[in-house]
Amino acid sequence: MHGYRGKILRANLSDKSFKVEPLDLERAKKFIGGRGLGAHMLLEEIDPSIDALSPENKIIITTGPLTGTPTPTGGRYMVTTKSPLSDVATSSNSGGHWGAELKFAGYDAIIIEGKSDTPVYISIEDDQLEFRDAKHLWGKMVSETTATIKSESADKSRILTIGPAGENLSRIAAIMNDYDRAAGRSGVGAVMGSKNLKAISVKGSSQPELYDREGLKSAVSAINKTIRENDTTGTGLPTFGTAVLVNIMNENGVFPTRNYQTSVFEGSNDISGETLAEKYLVKNEACFRCPIACGRYCKTDEVEGGGPEFETIWAYGAACGIDDLEEIIKTNYWCNEVGVDTISAGTTVAAAMELYEKGYIKDEQLDGIPLAFGDANGIVEWTKRMGSREGLGDLLAEGSYRLCDHYGVPELSMSSKKLELPAYDPRGIQGQGLAYATCNRGGCHVRGYVVSPEVLGNPEKIDRFATEGKAKWAKFFHDQVAFIDSLGLCVFTSFAIGAEEYCQMYNAACGTDHTEDSLREAGERIWCVEKIFNLRAGLTMADDTLPKRLLEEEIPEGPSAGHVNRLAEMLPEYYELRGWDNKGIPTTERLKKLMLTEEFGE
Amino acid sequence: MHGYRGKILRANLSDKSFKVEPLDLERAKKFIGGRGLGAHMLLEEIDPSIDALSPENKIIITTGPLTGTPTPTGGRYMVTTKSPLSDVATSSNSGGHWGAELKFAGYDAIIIEGKSDTPVYISIEDDQLEFRDAKHLWGKMVSETTATIKSESADKSRILTIGPAGENLSRIAAIMNDYDRAAGRSGVGAVMGSKNLKAISVKGSSQPELYDREGLKSAVSAINKTIRENDTTGTGLPTFGTAVLVNIMNENGVFPTRNYQTSVFEGSNDISGETLAEKYLVKNEACFRCPIACGRYCKTDEVEGGGPEFETIWAYGAACGIDDLEEIIKTNYWCNEVGVDTISAGTTVAAAMELYEKGYIKDEQLDGIPLAFGDANGIVEWTKRMGSREGLGDLLAEGSYRLCDHYGVPELSMSSKKLELPAYDPRGIQGQGLAYATCNRGGCHVRGYVVSPEVLGNPEKIDRFATEGKAKWAKFFHDQVAFIDSLGLCVFTSFAIGAEEYCQMYNAACGTDHTEDSLREAGERIWCVEKIFNLRAGLTMADDTLPKRLLEEEIPEGPSAGHVNRLAEMLPEYYELRGWDNKGIPTTERLKKLMLTEEFGE
Repeated sequence: MHGYRGKILRANLSDKSFKVEPLDLERAKKFIGGRGLGAHMLLEEIDPSIDALSPENKIIITTGPLTGTPTPTGGRYMVTTKSPLSDVATSSNSGGHWGAELKFAGYDAIIIEGKSDTPVYISIEDDQLEFRDAKHLWGKMVSETTATIKSESADKSRILTIGPAGENLSRIAAIMNDYDRAAGRSGVGAVMGSKNLKAISVKGSSQPELYDREGLKSAVSAINKTIRENDTTGTGLPTFGTAVLVNIMNENGVFPTRNYQTSVFEGSNDISGETLAEKYLVKNEACFRCPIACGRYCKTDEVEGGGPEFETIWAYGAACGIDDLEEIIKTNYWCNEVGVDTISAGTTVAAAMELYEKGYIKDEQLDGIPLAFGDANGIVEWTKRMGSREGLGDLLAEGSYRLCDHYGVPELSMSSKKLELPAYDPRGIQGQGLAYATCNRGGCHVRGYVVSPEVLGNPEKIDRFATEGKAKWAKFFHDQVAFIDSLGLCVFTSFAIGAEEYCQMYNAACGTDHTEDSLREAGERIWCVEKIFNLRAGLTMADDTLPKRLLEEEIPEGPSAGHVNRLAEMLPEYYELRGWDNKGIPTTERLKKLMLTEEFGE
Repeated sequence: MHGYRGKILRANLSDKSFKVEPLDLERAKKFIGGRGLGAHMLLEEIDPSIDALSPENKIIITTGPLTGTPTPTGGRYMVTTKSPLSDVATSSNSGGHWGAELKFAGYDAIIIEGKSDTPVYISIEDDQLEFRDAKHLWGKMVSETTATIKSESADKSRILTIGPAGENLSRIAAIMNDYDRAAGRSGVGAVMGSKNLKAISVKGSSQPELYDREGLKSAVSAINKTIRENDTTGTGLPTFGTAVLVNIMNENGVFPTRNYQTSVFEGSNDISGETLAEKYLVKNEACFRCPIACGRYCKTDEVEGGGPEFETIWAYGAACGIDDLEEIIKTNYWCNEVGVDTISAGTTVAAAMELYEKGYIKDEQLDGIPLAFGDANGIVEWTKRMGSREGLGDLLAEGSYRLCDHYGVPELSMSSKKLELPAYDPRGIQGQGLAYATCNRGGCHVRGYVVSPEVLGNPEKIDRFATEGKAKWAKFFHDQVAFIDSLGLCVFTSFAIGAEEYCQMYNAACGTDHTEDSLREAGERIWCVEKIFNLRAGLTMADDTLPKRLLEEEIPEGPSAGHVNRLAEMLPEYYELRGWDNKGIPTTERLKKLMLTEEFGE
């Protein structure tokens, strides 16, 4: 067994049993691992019609074949489950060190089933497995929980946990690991909470075997050099973190402001990566074997900790009309403590601000806490309340779609498939809009970052206002990210390297014989498996869309003024390139080509 | 007050009193801060003839004016004291985060005086100052001590501590901070131990004011870019850490092996930075605001933690004839736990190996622990014993000079001024030999790294076997490091930037009006203050020398075969360039030029 460890841990919370099952290596290789393997397990094990917060849902945690190997960024894990936010097949991934440690403990994956009567956590130390009482941890913030479990565990154990938001079934709750790393999106933390599972500690003591250690060594050495010499991964991200994008997006007029009412933010310089680096940055933080180290560790007079990322700065900044970076850093700290996805949390506050501005939310609901665009004084408290569900926080904890729907105006939620959109206005970046609308887990940028060619000019500069040819780009990125996520690597590596390099690493580590084409095809296969789950969950072509505002209201000012997203011009071609019919249903022919006829048994 | 904080904390351990004194800003600026200010305080406050381990010695901890500012690597602190190893004015500096935190607490420096009756630690939280009982910490390893004090202190406090080596007055004991960062050289940890001071915890909540925030911001932005684009600081050090030098030095035949008996190590590839990165590296670690992140964090099946550095790999590797990298990583871990300088510890073991090989140390002294060149099985245990002083460890804890002197063969100690030499054989790098021999604190490479032009070709390549012109280079680096150390920055920045950039940062942060020339002159002034202390301590020209082996025995093989160090050809010119007489005594004329006549009151 090379790269993979060959074991899956099945933990049943209802009867407190563990079962160690062999990994089906053939299946693992067909779907690579990580996200792909998780998606296929979800399809096999879960009825797509279940309530995501019922004991019937499962949490599938997978590592990739390169997780825990000497490859750059090879430390990621993926959480796959039915999303309580978007009600579709979701997976959410995270860096840090927890994923590599799980691999060192000897497991490729954990499948968590059922529901415990009382709060517990799972302790894994190689083959020593325990369910432990977590009553003393319930209600505790992420850092206190992490520190307490560390003191109860083997030296240097890595901790994955939920905060109060997950316990209280906030649909935007994250799973946190290593204190400040998050499997953030789509409410995976609430699924843990629904099972009364507070945390998983893990400590391992052996490394995966490698097929061709020398070959991998020389490939990794060259790839590390390429990553360090690339402008984005070698200079931009290490120097300013992801927030290097604040000024770039604003200068292009695609920096959504005040819940997407405009897309130019007058305060952008005050919240830029440059300002962050100058005033608050303490150090860079690197995940397991990462040569980029985009992670920030910041300090204000009141708090210090990991982050904030670009998306967080945008969500609580421009999206809320706020230019107070210090308050944003504090709010980011509390997002990590209560355990919520910063994108969904910040944009849900932004949606609430518009609801308040338009009179749907009344002053008497606020308990005196500010909720006006531009007012930074309430964002810490609203974030804490999304964790505790106190007062209006109870509605905010549901995410922006259910919040706006509660007031009868779901169109004010800037989301797709109920997942809040991130910091790139698709009215000025046409292809990104298509990628949002067609994304299996909902409005997401990391699953297909067409911003890269449309705005950043990587790997080539294309016209961001054109719709022609964008379907090809969206599919390209969707499939590419699918295989990167499945290998266990970070998508940021793809700014510098491509399928050729990923093949080199996968083949050397695992003895596979992938070509660039076969790796891309594996990506497409994985995408299709997620799609099949969603179709079975009842989604249709009508769900592949964007908020009405972005399709009908022009950006009112700035370099992208006058544009809406012209999704309808792009969607048919995207379906066609995928080999789907004009309703977005995969054809039998394409399923055959992808070796998925068994999976699509209808 | 800009850059500086304006306050010095004086802590008297004998009567448990604290006094906060104003910083003499004029003096601070004359000696910059950090190392320069510390050296001048030492000269003013300490009788150079005292026993370094007596209560009359003081520990002077200084930050630089750029410590805790947004400058790259601006997080360093300096410990100045009389060295119990070399019996001269020493200072030892460290990165991590502790130094910046002290600045945030509002202090430029701490002066520690006297001796406590019982073990204590000092707790600093802004202006809340406490001596606290440390009986429960005495005898504890560095990581346990750090974790315990953290649990007793304000959230995110930074901890500086000694391990058992410092408590037991090992003359090669380090002061550790942030778990795995070390003010390593010259036994500063023993001075803390001699005072019954176990640790200092610090937490601060305000930042230094800056003279020209915008000017500093743009200077720092450009300098960070330069650092990231430089081959050494942007690629070599981040990718492989300092251990990138293993193969380079070995290929030049200047990689001292088996206590300098040869200088080519057959096992060098097994202990290289490349092998470290491939097999054991978990992530890079960055100190406060460092864009380089040369720090390694490694994991074996048994231990994980910070390091190892190049020097550690060499000292326990080639110097001991050992090619087992995993055992070296473990030994590095234990060096950090017991708190010893890895260079002095490893080379003292190497000297002991030669004493054993030559029959001075007998089998019956070993308690069954291997002490032969090339045998990795004893190095962890010998390291622990340097901390506990058990058995032969009692002699090893004295450092290599006193160890060899005990057996009547001090010439087998590869040291200068009793400080063990590092990993560059001066027989094949002539200028480096001069820099070792003339270094105020003894055989040290970081105080003047002539290796840079002689081997690495930075800023230009010069003939490493020539002696001509080397005095100029040694003085250049000695003075340059003196001002970098005094500013509070890391010397590694100087691979990429020069006096011009340091001036830009210092002037913008503090409102000084330094030119390149005046900054270099400040460096020379600082060097001269240390020299004055040493002269008063009784040192003479005879101490500016190298081990007999390096002056008389040719390297027997490899690319530097046939060479000895020709110190005598270089020393007179070095004195002359410094404006010292032919016995190495500063002339009144030069003292006047350096505005030091007051200090040299004889």
